[in-house]
Amino acid sequence: MSRRFHAPVVLPADPACSVLRSAVVDVTDDGRIGFAGPEADAPEFAGEVTRLGGILLPGLVNTHAHSPMTLLRGMGGDLPLLRWLHEIIWPAEAKLKPADVRTGMLLGSVEMLRHGVTTSAEMYFEGEQLVDAVLTTGGRTLVAPPVMELPGMNWRTSLEAIERWIDADGLRFGPAERIELGYGPHSAYMLNPDGLRAVAESAAARGALVQIHVAEAANEDLVQREQHGSVPKLLDEVGILAGRTLAAHAIHLSDEDIALFAARGVGMAHCPGSNAKLASGIARVKELRAAGVAVGLGTDGPASNDDLDLWEEVQLSAMLARLATNDSTALTAADAFLLATRGGAEALGRPDLGALEPGRWADLVHVDLDDPAFAAGLDVPDEQLLSNLVWAAGSRRVRDVWVGGEPVIAAGESTRVDRAEVQASVTDTAARLRA
Amino acid sequence: MSRRFHAPVVLPADPACSVLRSAVVDVTDDGRIGFAGPEADAPEFAGEVTRLGGILLPGLVNTHAHSPMTLLRGMGGDLPLLRWLHEIIWPAEAKLKPADVRTGMLLGSVEMLRHGVTTSAEMYFEGEQLVDAVLTTGGRTLVAPPVMELPGMNWRTSLEAIERWIDADGLRFGPAERIELGYGPHSAYMLNPDGLRAVAESAAARGALVQIHVAEAANEDLVQREQHGSVPKLLDEVGILAGRTLAAHAIHLSDEDIALFAARGVGMAHCPGSNAKLASGIARVKELRAAGVAVGLGTDGPASNDDLDLWEEVQLSAMLARLATNDSTALTAADAFLLATRGGAEALGRPDLGALEPGRWADLVHVDLDDPAFAAGLDVPDEQLLSNLVWAAGSRRVRDVWVGGEPVIAAGESTRVDRAEVQASVTDTAARLRA
Repeated sequence: MSRRFHAPVVLPADPACSVLRSAVVDVTDDGRIGFAGPEADAPEFAGEVTRLGGILLPGLVNTHAHSPMTLLRGMGGDLPLLRWLHEIIWPAEAKLKPADVRTGMLLGSVEMLRHGVTTSAEMYFEGEQLVDAVLTTGGRTLVAPPVMELPGMNWRTSLEAIERWIDADGLRFGPAERIELGYGPHSAYMLNPDGLRAVAESAAARGALVQIHVAEAANEDLVQREQHGSVPKLLDEVGILAGRTLAAHAIHLSDEDIALFAARGVGMAHCPGSNAKLASGIARVKELRAAGVAVGLGTDGPASNDDLDLWEEVQLSAMLARLATNDSTALTAADAFLLATRGGAEALGRPDLGALEPGRWADLVHVDLDDPAFAAGLDVPDEQLLSNLVWAAGSRRVRDVWVGGEPVIAAGESTRVDRAEVQASVTDTAARLRA
Repeated sequence: MSRRFHAPVVLPADPACSVLRSAVVDVTDDGRIGFAGPEADAPEFAGEVTRLGGILLPGLVNTHAHSPMTLLRGMGGDLPLLRWLHEIIWPAEAKLKPADVRTGMLLGSVEMLRHGVTTSAEMYFEGEQLVDAVLTTGGRTLVAPPVMELPGMNWRTSLEAIERWIDADGLRFGPAERIELGYGPHSAYMLNPDGLRAVAESAAARGALVQIHVAEAANEDLVQREQHGSVPKLLDEVGILAGRTLAAHAIHLSDEDIALFAARGVGMAHCPGSNAKLASGIARVKELRAAGVAVGLGTDGPASNDDLDLWEEVQLSAMLARLATNDSTALTAADAFLLATRGGAEALGRPDLGALEPGRWADLVHVDLDDPAFAAGLDVPDEQLLSNLVWAAGSRRVRDVWVGGEPVIAAGESTRVDRAEVQASVTDTAARLRA
């Protein structure tokens, strides 16, 4: 056992959302959790104990992002989804060079780590650049290069490139298996059924995760509903739902669609902030959870959300579920916290992430208490402490972060990259994109 | 002219929501704004210019709060409104001593100032304690002691106490008129029509603001609707809408109610975060604004929101307006920013606050740029810069704050009180309330 952390409060993100007092987390030599529980129950430990002053919790899991879009943050933010994509985002992205994606991802990754988000599921092109950035910052990612039909983009070429990459480097690689490769068929409206079928077969053969946008815009849904009954039914027909699948957004779902997701074990990336900002709608989280669908939270890209702060999604998921159901108990602070941790890992098909349990990767976040949010103190009931963390503190007091047991954020700043330098690179790149 | 500030970007919060580049703000000896505009248009100035590195904007105006409830933050947060009030909040408040209100308000006021919120409209008892706290922190408040019927609380006694106070100290007092007194008839369900009528007459005679909760819970609204047509109609019958009136929440309004608000010049405190968290509903902001009602934003108390961060309300107001109308242009970043500044001042009947215009009080906020939110740089289009501020930066980078031209926050911390000491007092008080 290489290291032991002690904290006055540990949130293991177990299914009951326990609040452990005076507890320890042990990290093994290979970066996994050896033990997490009350200090009184901990095994013997000979080394030096790192005593933290605040709350220790698992790193948050961002189940849907396009993080290199830090380069496009705030561009055309007041347009509806499809106009915003066609008129603003895609034309700007057409100017991106491969190295720009690395620049944008460096900032996005550092930004997420500073918020305590240790894992992100990314759908973006120039995957090698993205992976290089995340290996540099010390973060963890599941990258899904897009497979879609656009002028100058052939889905077969994209698909074969992913296959070659996985066959060469393996599905997971890097220190503490910090990189996982997968497939990003953009959506049923950007890839035809033949393409979707080919992706499904290729991914299933490699045990890979398929990330796909589903039923985000109401008008998208109407077209698909006429043609195939519903988007989920179409995806099921072509085999996409049979393997490891992450449906992003999934707003406009019928009861039948939800039952289909549950039957096929589809994970769901709920992106309440992006969906609200773009007026796309409110996903049926209460019903999805009741049906047994694994739901995680996603920020979506920083061009539409805009700061990759998953704590905002934690708050929003609870607020919007309550408004949608007229029920202030529809999603508690504890429920929402679990969506961002354990639930996100489950949605990605990654039971090795998202909770402090032996065998999972030691992706850890330390929140300090120097904030009015915690002025009532730690001796409050568990429910109140969770409320203070989730509703009042959020990302503001994330102080230290470890991924696979390695420190990546210390006292709020990256241990691996110079943030000012990264921001300056983004400034230069953004200026070139505007020119 | 005592002082000149220069900033690369100044947001005066004029009706067009202009973004001024390389601009100055002059502050007069008595703490008001002398000039705000591009440096090129500025009058001669002989003194030393304070050169700021970021964005200078007016202090935000929180139009509805119960800030001393920092003492109760996070208590019972998953209950519906009326149960939460009756079972958790009111029993806890019954244990409060007068000095506790000062303690709770000290923290609430420092917290708001750190977020760049310079003014708050407060409805809370022990008004003298609250005022003492705000005079200590350097903030600005409009305090409305409650007038209501509860066991041990007589509305006539409360009303007479307010009258005596205003008649003794004046409607506004303190340095830079930082304190304004007013009336807080809690709601039409906590005060009978005779009491409401008496408040209306007393307030009108003194030109004072009446702060009142209106149509917050759907069930509250149903009862009132049966008895009087609607809550606004009842309030109009008893004269409450005739003077300076601020309606807090105002969720469940008919088209007729909105027209009545517009006709009577009622201001509206929109509290999207509290309303979402308690599942109370979404106020009809788009329709209210279209009808010409002055709408501001409010956090509500920290027991229900929970961190007095009005920037979150800025984001939420835009998100919820867009969801409620299926229109991503329903409330732009600029619109939402104006709600929190100029709009809030207008809703309070205070044209001397909420914008950087000659004659208004110099309540100023400086946001620095050391954040990924601003990585695209300042040379972006105006709309994008506003988006980066509103959607990505929020309160995180508020660095310096002045009220009536006097510094109250420097480099993120209070210049007037020791925050750690205030937090420790809250910890002690919260422990006593739990005992």
